Parts: sequence; C-alpha cells; structure tokens
Amino acid sequence: MLGLMQDWPLLIHRIIDHAANNHGSQTILSRSVEGPLHTTTYADLRTNALKVAQALERHGVKYGDRAATLAWNTWRHLEVWYGLTGIGAIYHTVNPRLFPDQIAYIINHAESRLIFVDLTFVPLVEALIDKLPHVEAVIILTGSEHMPETTLENAVCYEDWIAAEDGDFAWKSFDENTAAGMCYTSGTTGNPKGVVYSHRSNVLHSMASTAPDMLGIAAADNVMPVVPMFHANGWSLAFSCPLTGGGMVMPGAGMDGASVYEMLETGKVTITAAVPTVWLMLLQYLEKEQKRPTTLKKVIIGGSACPRAMTKTFQDVYGIDVIHAWGMTEMSPLGSLCSLKPAYAGLTGDAKLDVQEKQGFAPFSVEMKITDDDGNDLPWDGKTFGRLKVRGPAISKAYFKGEGGEILDADGYFDTSDVATIDPEGYMQITDRAKDVIKSGGEWISSIDLENLAVGHPDVAEAAVIGVAHPKWDERPLLIIVRCEGADPDPASILDFMAGKIAKWWMPDAVAFVDEIPHTATGKIKKTALREQFADYRLPNTDAAE
Amino acid sequence: MLGLMQDWPLLIHRIIDHAANNHGSQTILSRSVEGPLHTTTYADLRTNALKVAQALERHGVKYGDRAATLAWNTWRHLEVWYGLTGIGAIYHTVNPRLFPDQIAYIINHAESRLIFVDLTFVPLVEALIDKLPHVEAVIILTGSEHMPETTLENAVCYEDWIAAEDGDFAWKSFDENTAAGMCYTSGTTGNPKGVVYSHRSNVLHSMASTAPDMLGIAAADNVMPVVPMFHANGWSLAFSCPLTGGGMVMPGAGMDGASVYEMLETGKVTITAAVPTVWLMLLQYLEKEQKRPTTLKKVIIGGSACPRAMTKTFQDVYGIDVIHAWGMTEMSPLGSLCSLKPAYAGLTGDAKLDVQEKQGFAPFSVEMKITDDDGNDLPWDGKTFGRLKVRGPAISKAYFKGEGGEILDADGYFDTSDVATIDPEGYMQITDRAKDVIKSGGEWISSIDLENLAVGHPDVAEAAVIGVAHPKWDERPLLIIVRCEGADPDPASILDFMAGKIAKWWMPDAVAFVDEIPHTATGKIKKTALREQFADYRLPNTDAAE
Repeated sequence: MLGLMQDWPLLIHRIIDHAANNHGSQTILSRSVEGPLHTTTYADLRTNALKVAQALERHGVKYGDRAATLAWNTWRHLEVWYGLTGIGAIYHTVNPRLFPDQIAYIINHAESRLIFVDLTFVPLVEALIDKLPHVEAVIILTGSEHMPETTLENAVCYEDWIAAEDGDFAWKSFDENTAAGMCYTSGTTGNPKGVVYSHRSNVLHSMASTAPDMLGIAAADNVMPVVPMFHANGWSLAFSCPLTGGGMVMPGAGMDGASVYEMLETGKVTITAAVPTVWLMLLQYLEKEQKRPTTLKKVIIGGSACPRAMTKTFQDVYGIDVIHAWGMTEMSPLGSLCSLKPAYAGLTGDAKLDVQEKQGFAPFSVEMKITDDDGNDLPWDGKTFGRLKVRGPAISKAYFKGEGGEILDADGYFDTSDVATIDPEGYMQITDRAKDVIKSGGEWISSIDLENLAVGHPDVAEAAVIGVAHPKWDERPLLIIVRCEGADPDPASILDFMAGKIAKWWMPDAVAFVDEIPHTATGKIKKTALREQFADYRLPNTDAAE
Repeated sequence: MLGLMQDWPLLIHRIIDHAANNHGSQTILSRSVEGPLHTTTYADLRTNALKVAQALERHGVKYGDRAATLAWNTWRHLEVWYGLTGIGAIYHTVNPRLFPDQIAYIINHAESRLIFVDLTFVPLVEALIDKLPHVEAVIILTGSEHMPETTLENAVCYEDWIAAEDGDFAWKSFDENTAAGMCYTSGTTGNPKGVVYSHRSNVLHSMASTAPDMLGIAAADNVMPVVPMFHANGWSLAFSCPLTGGGMVMPGAGMDGASVYEMLETGKVTITAAVPTVWLMLLQYLEKEQKRPTTLKKVIIGGSACPRAMTKTFQDVYGIDVIHAWGMTEMSPLGSLCSLKPAYAGLTGDAKLDVQEKQGFAPFSVEMKITDDDGNDLPWDGKTFGRLKVRGPAISKAYFKGEGGEILDADGYFDTSDVATIDPEGYMQITDRAKDVIKSGGEWISSIDLENLAVGHPDVAEAAVIGVAHPKWDERPLLIIVRCEGADPDPASILDFMAGKIAKWWMPDAVAFVDEIPHTATGKIKKTALREQFADYRLPNTDAAE
C-alpha cells in the first residue's frame, strides 16, 4: 500500500525557487573577477538562472548534456549551476589547479559541450582548445566591457548571452535521479574519475547538511564558501545557503589572508568553510596586522585534518568556534562534522581539543562502519581502527562510464580508502589512508598519527611516514623529515620527543631527512612518490632481524 | 542521464537506526500511564521496536496492514510506530477525544487489524469492540503486573508480547512511497477522512522541519511533544527528534499545568510544542504557584492561532521565545513557522508581536500561494488575502479510499480551506477559514480578525463572528458574544471599542449575546452550529436596506 502524499520530485530548481520566494531580498555579495564587489539577491539570481536556461536551450543544450565550468566562487558561477540543472543539463566543475593534460582529459571524458570560464582561465582554455573536440563554445563569465582579446573562435560574452533572454521560462521537470553535476576525483594514481551527483542527492545532502548540529545555517547567517565550487561539489554550499535563506559571500579568486579578511568583514560573515591552508593564511594575516574578525562565529574546516593548534588559536584568541569536518567528492561531500554533543559539551582546554581533533559524527543519511580487511564489522570503541565504509543517498555507487569498476561492497557500502576509529558517541577519527597504514606483524600503525606527533618537534617543518619492507614484521615505519630552515636536529632527538607518547611498537625504525616532500595538486602528501623514492631503502636494523 | 548516487530509499527505520548508532545513549523520559517516570534510550528503543516488528510478523501482520493506536505520548507508543513501519505496516493514530461513533467509523474505515491501547482507553475499546469486525487483537500497552480485568477476548499484554522476541531482526526494505501512517481529519461536517503518510513524506518532512529556522532541534536539546501523537502526525516529533539526536520528554496523559511543569523541569526540556490551550493552563499554573521554567528556551505554538497576550507573557515574564507555527494533518503537518528573519530580527515590543502574530514562512519543501476564488495568484503584500494553497512532498494528494474526491488544483496545489495574507518576506498570516470569511459586496471580511478584536474588550469572554444574509451586501457580520462572568456590557460599548481599529465597512452590523459558543472536539469554534442557531436571525438594519 502506497502513501497518498504529493509527487514532488527533489529537483534543484526548487531550492532557488524557495529562496527567491521566501528569501528574495537576501543578498549574495561577490568579489568579481574583474575587481569590484558585486551584490545581487536570490530573487535576481533566479531571474538570471532562468535566462541561462533559456540561452542554453537557444544554443541547443538538452537534458543530459554536460557543460564544464572553470570558475571561481561568484554569483555568475551560481547562475550557471542553476541554469544548467534547471533544464536537466549537468554542471561539470573542473579544478583549474590540475595539470593541463588532466584538465583536457576530464573535459573530454565528460564530453562537455560548453565551457563557462572566468577571465583568469581564458589563457588556459586557449592553450587546450585544440585538444577538446566536444567543446562547441566557450562562454566567458564577464560583461562586454571586459571581454578579452582571445584566439578562441567560439568565445561568447556571458552577460550579452543572457541579456538576450527575458527570464520568462518554466523549469523543466524530470526524474529526481537525473544527473545534476559532475566532479572528477584526482587520485594519486590513474586518471581522474567522474563522480555524478543527481538532483535527489544534492537536495537531500543540502537538507541533511543544514541541520543545527551540521552546518547549522539559518536565514540570519551570512555564509562564505571559501572552498571553491570546483572542490568536492563546493561542499554543497551553493545549495544549502539558498535552501535555508542564508546570505552568501563569494570570495572570487581571493584566498589570501587579506582578501579573506576583507570579505569576512564586508560581508558580515557568520559562517565560513575551507581547507586548513586557507585558515593558516588568514591566521598569519590577523596576527601580523593585529586584526580580528568581528562577525564570524563558526569556521568549518575540512579537506584535510585540521591541526590542533589552528583550532586552539581560532577559539582561544579570536573566540570563533572551529568545526572539524570530513567528506569526500564521492560523498557530495559531507561525511561527518564535529559539533559537540551533550556528552562532550562541557569539556574545556585539552580535553575539548582532543574531541575536536576527531572528524565528528554523521548527519542523518550517512551510514558509517569500520571493518577489518575481511569486511568484518569492528567495534565503536574509539580505539580499534579499520577501513571506513559509508552508505547513503548522496554517496557514489559508481564512477562515470564505469571507470574503476564495482565500488560498493555486498551491503552497498562505499570504501572510503580511509582508516578510522569511531567512538561510542559516534565520533569518527581518520587515522590514516588505507594504503598508507603500516602493517606491522598483522597490526596496523597509523602513519598520520606519527606525522602529527613528529611535527610537534620544534625543528620539524613537515613529516611523512611510510612503511618499508621488513623481513620479520612485513612493514615498519620510516619517518621522513623536512627540517625547519636553519635547524639541524639529531634523529635521536626527534625519536626521543616521540617516545612515550605512542605505543612502543609504533616507534619509527629510522629517520630520513629530505629537502622537500612531494604533494598532490590538492596539497596532500604524495606518498606514492615517497615510496618510489625510498624503494631501495633498507632499515638499519633489518640485518639483525634476518 | 541519471546520476550515479546510491539507491537509499527514505525509510523510517533509517531514522531510529541513525539515532541508535549515533545518539544511542540519548534518553527518552516518559510519564508512564501507570504513574512512575520511565527512562529509555534510542539504542534500547530501537531494540524494542525490532521486537515489536518480530511480534507483528509472528501475529501475521504484513506489508500494508493497518494497526490503530489509542495512546498517549510515551516510549511505548514510539516503539509501536517504529515497529509497525519497520515491516511496512501502518500506524493509524486515533484521537480518543472523538465521539465513540467516530472512533468506530475511523477504525473500520481503515480496516485496522490490531489496536494498541493505553490503560486509559481500555474501557473505550471494550465498549466499541463489537462494532469493530476487522480487529483481531487488542494489545494493552502495559506490563503483566498492570494488566486490567477486561471483557476483551483477545487482549494481549504488550510487555509480554514483545518479551517473547529477541530483537534480532532486519528491517524490511520496500519502496519509499509505501504508506507509513494514517491520521483522520475531523472536519466540522461529514465523516472523518484518512490522510495517508508515506515513508518518504515522513522522512522529508522531518529533515525539513528540523532546520535551524524551523523547529531547530539539536542533539543538545530535550524536546517535549505535549501535542499528542494522535494529533496531526504528532507534529512529526517522533521522527525529527531521533533524526537529530535530540532527547525526548514524553508527558503521557498529563497536560495540566502542574504535570507539564513537572516534566519540563525533570526532563530539562529546552523545546516544547503544543496547542494554545495547554500553554494557557501552564501559564495559569506558573502564575498561581509563582514558578518559572528553568531550562525551557522555545515554545512552539500551533493548532490554532496563538493569542498575542500569550506570546507576550512567555517572552516578557519568563524569557522564553514563542514560535508561532501553522500546519495541517494533511501537511504532515508543518506548513510555516514564525522565526524571525534578519528583516524582523531587530524588532521589539509591539512591532515584534505584530510579526509574531503571523504564522511565519514556509520550510523548504512547502510551496505556498494565495489565490482569489477563480484561482488567480494574489500578491504577497501582507494585505491582500486569498485562499491559501500548498504543494510539497509531505502534503496530501488524496484521502484514503478516495473520500472527498479530487483535492488538488490543476497545478497540483492542495486548498487548505484557509484564507491568508503573505507579506513580502514570505510571512503568512491566516485571516480566516474560507467558509467563515464574510463576503460583503464582493469583498472579504475576516471573521477571525473581528473575533480577536472583540475579545480585547474587558467584558468579553469569547467571541464568534458569522456572516448572515443581507439583501444588499449578500452577507454582513454578526458578532456573537459570551460575556465574562458577572459582566453585562452594552452592545454599543463593544462596537465603540472596535471602531477605528478596523475598516468601517468591516464593523459588525449587530451584536448577539449567548451563554455558550459550541466547539468541535479539537476546541475550534463550531461555526456550522452557530450558523444553524442563527439561521432565522434578521439583522436590525435589513429592512432599511430593502
């Protein structure tokens, strides 16, 4: 027997309609790529998105077609997302920081028919266009007064393109499982793989992520997504802000400390979100300039683990709550968020920071489990760590065109490739990447825990730990160190510093010094490269063990 | 082209699983019907719900079967809802305050196979059982030590019934549009009609209603639904609390001021919800006993319009925010909620109360419009009033067995039968019931506005306004008054009191005094009865107009 409730598919246009109708005068303040600040409202944003939809139809873009965006966070990028999804076409964000070959690969793999591009990236597209056979037009996100000289044959001025339309358009209707967006994951090996979001997944994810203990966005908030829209579905803020009526502050290309601070203050920002690197730059700027954010209440930090010192500084020096979060491109992206439940709400000082180092608990609609290598469930005791697997309506079941094959286990869980603990309150903590964990005598050692510990040594600028072959234990940890400028620490002093703070059998067997640790395009340590570099490395105590 | 996100139907069991896994130690404190307080947790509630599911299967209850509940808000009632929905069966709440004949009609119309009944209502069921041919067993919600002597042949002791099971059970899987719950609306005319909620509608409604500007429930909250689970889907709090991890405080049968206050304090309640009558009793109790709630932050008031004086007292005397809300059984039930958006957040005093008299703005997933009698959209100017129509995934598209026929307009909107204004910020205000609005010379006069104004007169205990036939204007308002005890106001003094506060042509043409105004079972003025009573009434100025 079925219920007798209305058929109301979860389509993305309903979000911008809701915002325009119920929060029509709420503002979106952007730093334009051309320079000046720009202000619009949800009502006007919807009108322009409707014009985008009309212009797309004029161009012959149809249901299911992809259009790439190479763009910063601005109101125009939002208009493009809503315009595309409003006719069943697909926004396909491309990370401009990837290598040009990867960008070409991604655009070709997605078969994107159009590229929407900020002025910043016109040279990039000019250099690549001959390798992009599917692209029919390049729409430059600016007005005619700023149109650049370009070698692109099919360059279109965005503002002129939409000015030809009147906005008198009805959004298309279709199945809520229709594809809405694409974002390629940049793994450390192999080609990037395309994650394909649906209307349903984006709407459900936004509803779940705006809950009070999650992003907690209200109409009284002004939210600044510093995290780019091309990074992991832009943390879905393009949807969750209008869904709740919160104002938006879009920083454009400016992610340095001075620019972020200016937008925080100008936009009266209450909630902001980005990766730790951005916050490091902001904190350095604030300290140097002796400035303080005056409206900011909450910083959501994800993308990689938030350093304890950063949390402490935000909270103790500036009185701003830090909310540690975790997610993945494949998860739309929110997986967990570390707001403090009653069991932890009374904590202060180090005890509070201990909890805040965890990535937190899952929103409704994310199911988590940790398992051993054989797939058996492991206990939520905060100590046992296992492979972290997730299930939910906004989590990938496959990659575009089937790349990577079958990615779910028998129960439908997606393997995150992370290793984590979960405590009895449901707080998850990433302890390592599954491929980086060191398997020593059948037990697992977290490379990340060792790295975090080692960087606490005053002479250590950066640390990486990899497993190297060991005849008796299979693998043992090697600690690789970049020294602070001018420092010359003794290996023993670093190991002494670590001793007693971890189990004895976790202690690295050796320390190696390097001038630089290689990183991926998104700033993660490239352990594959380190493993290659140290492929012939032999631990000093190996002979004795043999 | 479809997205590549996981298939994860929106099933109700996922809510209790989420709570048990992520907020397992969070408590549900209940006033048991037997007397003592009872505490359980979400983890234990899930276990018992699994046992209910097993016991239902043992009894032969299948997908699509209905089971009635005649029960107060307690943990057992929650267990029954989750147990039933976990196998695709349907909870069918019955309002015990209805007339016995209506109760029999409802249970028979729903063809409920079981009745779950609190001790309070065993005599009621005993009196009706011979008229209930579909009912195979009556499960009495108590332990064996409290089982009553009963004439019921198939009476079962709930605690024994579930104690026979071990809770080792996997929830069933099915289409998310499967029926989950039923609640009959008690109109003032005709037989009650069955609203049928689905798993999808209940899950989406709970996700939408927990947003920060709506119910705003966090894991740190303790929420007391004083509103009974048999009233309008229990305002969906049985789902939205576990979905967010908020604690629950269930008041059982006690809705008087002393009982409500005791549970507010014992349960450290932060958010509570009920109809104005309950709050009137609480405020009288607080004043008489000179007590103050010490943890309560927010009172959600709906079901009928919240009197301005009540809002003022809660806020000014006790420092507790009042959130006016509006909904319908057919809307699962939340339609709008009056939290203060930035445009209104700075208001104080009367200006703030003016806004708080409105029923507020819609959550995401509720679309509203107001139209004239021909279905044309009317402007959102806060003045124009029209028929209020709504659309969304948790709003009825039909009643059970097709009663009442087609209920949606051509665009899929459900007519609420209310008349309302909507202001430019999206704040809706009910001005009348469509059938009660007085149509005078082609213009509409709000009977409710007149009533609210008249009760401000110190000698008026209650007021009702109906339209009576008028040869020139079609209808003109008649003001019907119940005097305060011992008072004997002059009709002219009441009209003088009203004059100048409303448009001149809104002024009632006459005043009639009565000893009592008839009410429906749910406390609303029964205007049909008044119209019958005054069917032969002739306005004093009618002759002159003829």
